[in-house]
Amino acid sequence: MKLSARNILPGKVVAVTRGVTTSHVKIEIATGYVVTASITNEAVDALGLAIGKPATAIIKSSDVIVGVD
Amino acid sequence: MKLSARNILPGKVVAVTRGVTTSHVKIEIATGYVVTASITNEAVDALGLAIGKPATAIIKSSDVIVGVD
Amino acid sequence: MKLSARNILPGKVVAVTRGVTTSHVKIEIATGYVVTASITNEAVDALGLAIGKPATAIIKSSDVIVGVD
Amino acid sequence: MKLSARNILPGKVVAVTRGVTTSHVKIEIATGYVVTASITNEAVDALGLAIGKPATAIIKSSDVIVGVD
Amino acid sequence: MKLSARNILPGKVVAVTRGVTTSHVKIEIATGYVVTASITNEAVDALGLAIGKPATAIIKSSDVIVGVD
Amino acid sequence: MKLSARNILPGKVVAVTRGVTTSHVKIEIATGYVVTASITNEAVDALGLAIGKPATAIIKSSDVIVGVD
Repeated sequence: MKLSARNILPGKVVAVTRGVTTSHVKIEIATGYVVTASITNEAVDALGLAIGKPATAIIKSSDVIVGVD
Repeated sequence: MKLSARNILPGKVVAVTRGVTTSHVKIEIATGYVVTASITNEAVDALGLAIGKPATAIIKSSDVIVGVD
Repeated sequence: MKLSARNILPGKVVAVTRGVTTSHVKIEIATGYVVTASITNEAVDALGLAIGKPATAIIKSSDVIVGVD
Repeated sequence: MKLSARNILPGKVVAVTRGVTTSHVKIEIATGYVVTASITNEAVDALGLAIGKPATAIIKSSDVIVGVD
Repeated sequence: MKLSARNILPGKVVAVTRGVTTSHVKIEIATGYVVTASITNEAVDALGLAIGKPATAIIKSSDVIVGVD
Repeated sequence: MKLSARNILPGKVVAVTRGVTTSHVKIEIATGYVVTASITNEAVDALGLAIGKPATAIIKSSDVIVGVD
């Protein structure tokens, strides 16, 4: 499936922290570049997310803030 | 300023496409890794964003979707 | 690709309104149910979105507000 | 109240899963169409959300991603 | 309608800047406090937004980032 | 750091409610004006958020919905 989201960053799961309803998943998209996603436990289970598995971080352009020093 | 957003990706502006109210800004965060942000023209001007300038892409974890093949 | 987003609503494009940088795309997900998406023109082109084409509206659970009368 | 959000999908609550701070609420907007919302427990209580109660899923157009196969 | 969104800030429209598809609306919620919203032109028209009219800024808690100096 | 987000509301933390993975933080931005943020526990710890500490609520314009009565 092709997505309208302009930011599609493939990588590998390096951490899954599970709460009662919400999990935080960390995906290493390049050496030293880790993206954190906050998703439902239901999604973690449906996707079989676990450390070491390939996964892609997907981000809509309208959700990106820009900062300058 | 420290931010609660867990994804702070510093890089360099490689493109600015300006609409009437909304601009699309592309930030290269590593060689071959470009993040697109959709922001207000007002912000582009306030931050002085232009090709070649340093800029950081900031993304809240709750805005990251995870995909698996 | 399987997505963590819990709301995956397949349908058909019924309108595309194009601005200078941003387009509004309407997808009919069932008779009388139309979902509007605001996406980049770049995405409209990359996905070849046009009236009558199949398309899916994808929404993260954390982006859904609940209202009661 | 009229809302700028272009996606207003009325339905009925079919599930409420409660975590320590965050709940997941499922709203059936049509037969076989269920939308999941991740909201604060505080909101669940303030709105009196419970299975069988009418509720509306509200989604801003800029939060909708489009996918095509 | 009661909303799950925890941030409901009533005020008055002080500016509407219209693009081809997207408008930026500024709402003064208290003296010196102005909130900017990026919404569809379709919504501006449907709500009859114009300078001086009462309007409410509505923000989901999961869309608020926290910063500290 | 200057941010593209158009809504930067400085204030003081008045409540922190901690879940297993996600916390809700309330920031009073003016007398009687409290903004609620849903953020990761990891961020609460990294920023040292606690009642009475100064903190700023940051909101992207594309995350603001407008309502009218």
